[in-house]
Amino acid sequence: MKGYVFHGPGHASWQEVPDPGVKDPADAIVRVDAVTICGTDLHILKGDVPGVRPGTVLGHEAVGEIVEIGSNVHSVRPGDRVLVSCITACGRCRFCRQGTYGQCQGGGGWTLGHLIDGTQAEYVRVPFADLSVHALPGTLDGKDAVLLADIFPTAYEVGVLNGHVRPGDTVAVVGAGPIGLAAIATARLFAPERIVAVDLAATRLEAARHLGADAVADAREAPEQLVADLTDGLGADVVVEAVGVPESFEMCTRMVRPGGHVANVGVHGRPATLHLEELWARNVTITTGIVDTSSTPTLLRMAAAGRLPTSDLVTHTFPLDDMEEAYDVFGRAADTGALKVVLGGEQHEVVAVRAA
Amino acid sequence: MKGYVFHGPGHASWQEVPDPGVKDPADAIVRVDAVTICGTDLHILKGDVPGVRPGTVLGHEAVGEIVEIGSNVHSVRPGDRVLVSCITACGRCRFCRQGTYGQCQGGGGWTLGHLIDGTQAEYVRVPFADLSVHALPGTLDGKDAVLLADIFPTAYEVGVLNGHVRPGDTVAVVGAGPIGLAAIATARLFAPERIVAVDLAATRLEAARHLGADAVADAREAPEQLVADLTDGLGADVVVEAVGVPESFEMCTRMVRPGGHVANVGVHGRPATLHLEELWARNVTITTGIVDTSSTPTLLRMAAAGRLPTSDLVTHTFPLDDMEEAYDVFGRAADTGALKVVLGGEQHEVVAVRAA
Amino acid sequence: MKGYVFHGPGHASWQEVPDPGVKDPADAIVRVDAVTICGTDLHILKGDVPGVRPGTVLGHEAVGEIVEIGSNVHSVRPGDRVLVSCITACGRCRFCRQGTYGQCQGGGGWTLGHLIDGTQAEYVRVPFADLSVHALPGTLDGKDAVLLADIFPTAYEVGVLNGHVRPGDTVAVVGAGPIGLAAIATARLFAPERIVAVDLAATRLEAARHLGADAVADAREAPEQLVADLTDGLGADVVVEAVGVPESFEMCTRMVRPGGHVANVGVHGRPATLHLEELWARNVTITTGIVDTSSTPTLLRMAAAGRLPTSDLVTHTFPLDDMEEAYDVFGRAADTGALKVVLGGEQHEVVAVRAA
Amino acid sequence: MKGYVFHGPGHASWQEVPDPGVKDPADAIVRVDAVTICGTDLHILKGDVPGVRPGTVLGHEAVGEIVEIGSNVHSVRPGDRVLVSCITACGRCRFCRQGTYGQCQGGGGWTLGHLIDGTQAEYVRVPFADLSVHALPGTLDGKDAVLLADIFPTAYEVGVLNGHVRPGDTVAVVGAGPIGLAAIATARLFAPERIVAVDLAATRLEAARHLGADAVADAREAPEQLVADLTDGLGADVVVEAVGVPESFEMCTRMVRPGGHVANVGVHGRPATLHLEELWARNVTITTGIVDTSSTPTLLRMAAAGRLPTSDLVTHTFPLDDMEEAYDVFGRAADTGALKVVLGGEQHEVVAVRAA
Repeated sequence: MKGYVFHGPGHASWQEVPDPGVKDPADAIVRVDAVTICGTDLHILKGDVPGVRPGTVLGHEAVGEIVEIGSNVHSVRPGDRVLVSCITACGRCRFCRQGTYGQCQGGGGWTLGHLIDGTQAEYVRVPFADLSVHALPGTLDGKDAVLLADIFPTAYEVGVLNGHVRPGDTVAVVGAGPIGLAAIATARLFAPERIVAVDLAATRLEAARHLGADAVADAREAPEQLVADLTDGLGADVVVEAVGVPESFEMCTRMVRPGGHVANVGVHGRPATLHLEELWARNVTITTGIVDTSSTPTLLRMAAAGRLPTSDLVTHTFPLDDMEEAYDVFGRAADTGALKVVLGGEQHEVVAVRAA
Repeated sequence: MKGYVFHGPGHASWQEVPDPGVKDPADAIVRVDAVTICGTDLHILKGDVPGVRPGTVLGHEAVGEIVEIGSNVHSVRPGDRVLVSCITACGRCRFCRQGTYGQCQGGGGWTLGHLIDGTQAEYVRVPFADLSVHALPGTLDGKDAVLLADIFPTAYEVGVLNGHVRPGDTVAVVGAGPIGLAAIATARLFAPERIVAVDLAATRLEAARHLGADAVADAREAPEQLVADLTDGLGADVVVEAVGVPESFEMCTRMVRPGGHVANVGVHGRPATLHLEELWARNVTITTGIVDTSSTPTLLRMAAAGRLPTSDLVTHTFPLDDMEEAYDVFGRAADTGALKVVLGGEQHEVVAVRAA
Repeated sequence: MKGYVFHGPGHASWQEVPDPGVKDPADAIVRVDAVTICGTDLHILKGDVPGVRPGTVLGHEAVGEIVEIGSNVHSVRPGDRVLVSCITACGRCRFCRQGTYGQCQGGGGWTLGHLIDGTQAEYVRVPFADLSVHALPGTLDGKDAVLLADIFPTAYEVGVLNGHVRPGDTVAVVGAGPIGLAAIATARLFAPERIVAVDLAATRLEAARHLGADAVADAREAPEQLVADLTDGLGADVVVEAVGVPESFEMCTRMVRPGGHVANVGVHGRPATLHLEELWARNVTITTGIVDTSSTPTLLRMAAAGRLPTSDLVTHTFPLDDMEEAYDVFGRAADTGALKVVLGGEQHEVVAVRAA
Repeated sequence: MKGYVFHGPGHASWQEVPDPGVKDPADAIVRVDAVTICGTDLHILKGDVPGVRPGTVLGHEAVGEIVEIGSNVHSVRPGDRVLVSCITACGRCRFCRQGTYGQCQGGGGWTLGHLIDGTQAEYVRVPFADLSVHALPGTLDGKDAVLLADIFPTAYEVGVLNGHVRPGDTVAVVGAGPIGLAAIATARLFAPERIVAVDLAATRLEAARHLGADAVADAREAPEQLVADLTDGLGADVVVEAVGVPESFEMCTRMVRPGGHVANVGVHGRPATLHLEELWARNVTITTGIVDTSSTPTLLRMAAAGRLPTSDLVTHTFPLDDMEEAYDVFGRAADTGALKVVLGGEQHEVVAVRAA
């Protein structure tokens, strides 16, 4: 089969690789119908994720069809159309028993396209299939569903749920890339009074408005002041960090009201400064987290009911074979306006940019 | 009357000051029977709290008797024996309506011995008396009760409740001064499996054991390793920061398990480094806070029922007139072994060090 | 002034009564601009609420203008346009300190139009004004705002919040009168997957659809089966009882899934049968409650932002003087199709039935 | 091997039965070292549990040693000393994913000694072994540990956790049989101010005092009044129903304060009357539930640390072969004073009644 193989920093190619097979009774083999590219994949290509060994097929998000299962798979069977989650779960360790699959100590967690071959291929072996793939509601398009493999549960769990968004809240989302946009979309499930989006790029702020932001601010133009003005000087109830750099995190801690929440979603490579000399008395809650995908069944139902604007995030689609071009378009997002690119899916033509 | 007056950095004296009187219908005047000195008072003396103007009577903790009330005080009457809380509450602002009195926007919060004259005097005017003093259960000794004015609710609310201590938890308390010791005592209300205390001073670790710590560690001797060893390498469920320096806070973030809580209680003067490059994926919750004293009624009942070891924290008692000597003993805690010093109260002799 | 005075079961009239004045420093006098009639008022007229003495002015919901305040009122001043809440709150008792104003032990709770003269008059005296009236956002129409005095916070707090509605839930609302319709409207703030409304009247089910119910069922036609069919036989995550008779409550307990919530909002006059022989092992949570109106500030902001469909519940409007006619129309709801009738407000013409 | 076989209402015997073997790759075979008898077993013998077919080996609580595992068991291996939980869990269904194993839809839940052969035998086959047996801490005696198979997690999860016991609470436990006593013991983990035990039998009330009740009341002598007197007329914060008859449940609803919790643990055979005409406005939360045993790992650690008084509940011990005598003693508890009887375990002599 064909797969997108990492060859070390700066090098990867869409090439022939051996077909995967069942290695453990809990495995399932999935024929990939739709797949997407994550910002993390770009980090891997740059060499920022040393755990990924050369020779690994990348990708941790897919929709496809079960073609084979091990003897210990009970939840799905060949022919089932499924979502492949970015997180696999042993189901037995103390973390899995509490639904915090992202911290799995039994061999799961984020492994696909990281420690084992991933989804950017024609077929993928999914370990612990019972807890790691989800049967798709029939009404849900693969192109939409694939966004539930990672960015929607990440934004919802790590941003919106950790941040405890409540009806009537003022929510600030710092960073309007795909994750930030999904945070805006899922924050709306809790009917905040207003959502303020912050980014450097005008096109992303435009997309943020389209997804439901009530106000937007250029990150260079004192967004803290806008938030303060909107809240009688108090600050936002919830601030979601969706960038992953120290400056952005520190801005979030200046935007939050006393008693509010800062929910960090961004993947950070460097430490930030925590201004405890100001924050110690402000009753602030700061959370970090990797996605558990425990919300995936709920999000699938919401998407099938038409209550999640998944399509609005997909700016480009490609045939699966155009993986290298898709990476190029996604990697030059500032130029191409790419938010999420989807390969495969029911339709293969390139669509116009949605949010722009 | 006599009161302990701040005269600017490094200067304060027990001296004659005018008697306080009712200035607002919500005020009460309390004759002080027992008072204590807080670490914050030492900070004020050093000049670290610029909001305190010279001429202010210090002190924000007291037990005494109501001698006069304004026309709008309904909860207490002259003759009532009361605890004066370190936090006063307007009762009307959005924060007071939610019980977060420490963030009061209506003129309350921490004002006694800070923005207005405080409790280290023979009499004190307490604003918003209905929500700011608490009638004492008859069985409760003033010397014990005065510890419920600040350190017990602070340790309980900002450390134990914010940290979500649960039965079976491993709790690490970093800093075994009075606040840390009160955190140990109140963490025990939730039946953790074990409490690990960390400090630099052997005498404080001894006091920690006395208050209920199951293990103790010298802060210089890799306490993270002890916590890791006790928890199969996982880390503590809850870590309480009770020091207030960056090094201590950073140690806390290294001690906490994935999915655990760091509850900051310490008063910080400098920023800390937050290692988001390690923490971003560990599902950590970090909280800060100033006490609300919303738990004070509960703690008073617990203390009256003999379920809080308040006395164990009182190492020295003095007559009220010995304020300057009491400050000296408390200010040289490393030499004197002082934990909490109480002035006044039902007994005035100096007692032996309790926890040593 | 004129007021609507209860004269004993079956008798009431719009008549001259003395103007109210400030009796306590915490009182405010409000000139009533808009008022509505509650189902509870009809119960009082029938003699079902023995606490109401003849001679009492009825009504516990109003919008108006402050014309006078006592010396101890700080949150509002004459000229302010306010919402008069159905619940007053002393702000000092243990329940008020926790925001559960409906259980106030200090003289508040539901007293207006019950134990003291109420709002169905040209002027009303509101005790504990600081916590019992709410300044209105300028953009909010009085006719809409008056629905936030009782039915919206009741449906939201006692139905939706007590029931813990969550994104993706199936919510059943049994009873599509004004409270049930407000429960549907406020349940939507949490993005349930679907809301099923149950009632006997086709017109109310039509209104339920208009307010956002995804499915409706005639109460006589096995609504449990519809809920079961929609949920793979499992039952609803949350069931809101909004009728107040035993049969309705018992239906709710048959509709709820294992692990689900039954939130009783209905006012009951008789006991119900609780089938513990079936429910003991089903992990069901049942809640009861009277409104606290602690959510009123949030709901006011939501309404001002256009996020609550308050107007959709108002089927009839009248001038204030037409109180007796308004009672007649509201009391014959089955014939008139009345949901909520509003007297006064900015417009006085009778509007067409909204939801029909 | 020998096992205790149900032969229909009123008939059971300790007799030869076939040895169990692995039937599914997820099975484990456990050699039973200690077992106990549950009140539910007596109900089965009376014919009250129609799901139990004649020929079934009874029992759902055991401690033993793994002697064989299927190919899909990963958490334990032969030679491991384990607790066999009363609840087995498929680990894949929506309820198991949330830790509510008692509602398992995948073939687990309460099946041992109910739908399949149970633990009152020399060997038992345990399905879904990974989630259904728990490795024992080495320091824990089998006789103590076996109480964690059912009654301790039941009392803790369904009584104490569902009831939200908090520090400072007044907790009433109605019924001081084994479950009620375990509720008293585990309620103490949350440091309530006081626990009031209610029962008809003086010996059980004596045991309740021994386990930590601060006050006791004869169920015939107006226990509601005692609770009211202790709480300024308000009622208990939490009431745990541990009997299972309508009268007891109804007493609980009269004992609870406004805003309080009634946590039903009792197994009911008949409906109760719910006095909604009084409760509708009292903000009461009522919960039901079957145990999930999700707390078992925590309780095992607590017991190993000596923080659970399990031994105090064991009044009689027997060799495993004396099953019929043990049933007789347990079945005549009113005469024998039996609380829990343990068969097997490290010591086989009959000990004196502990709590009497």
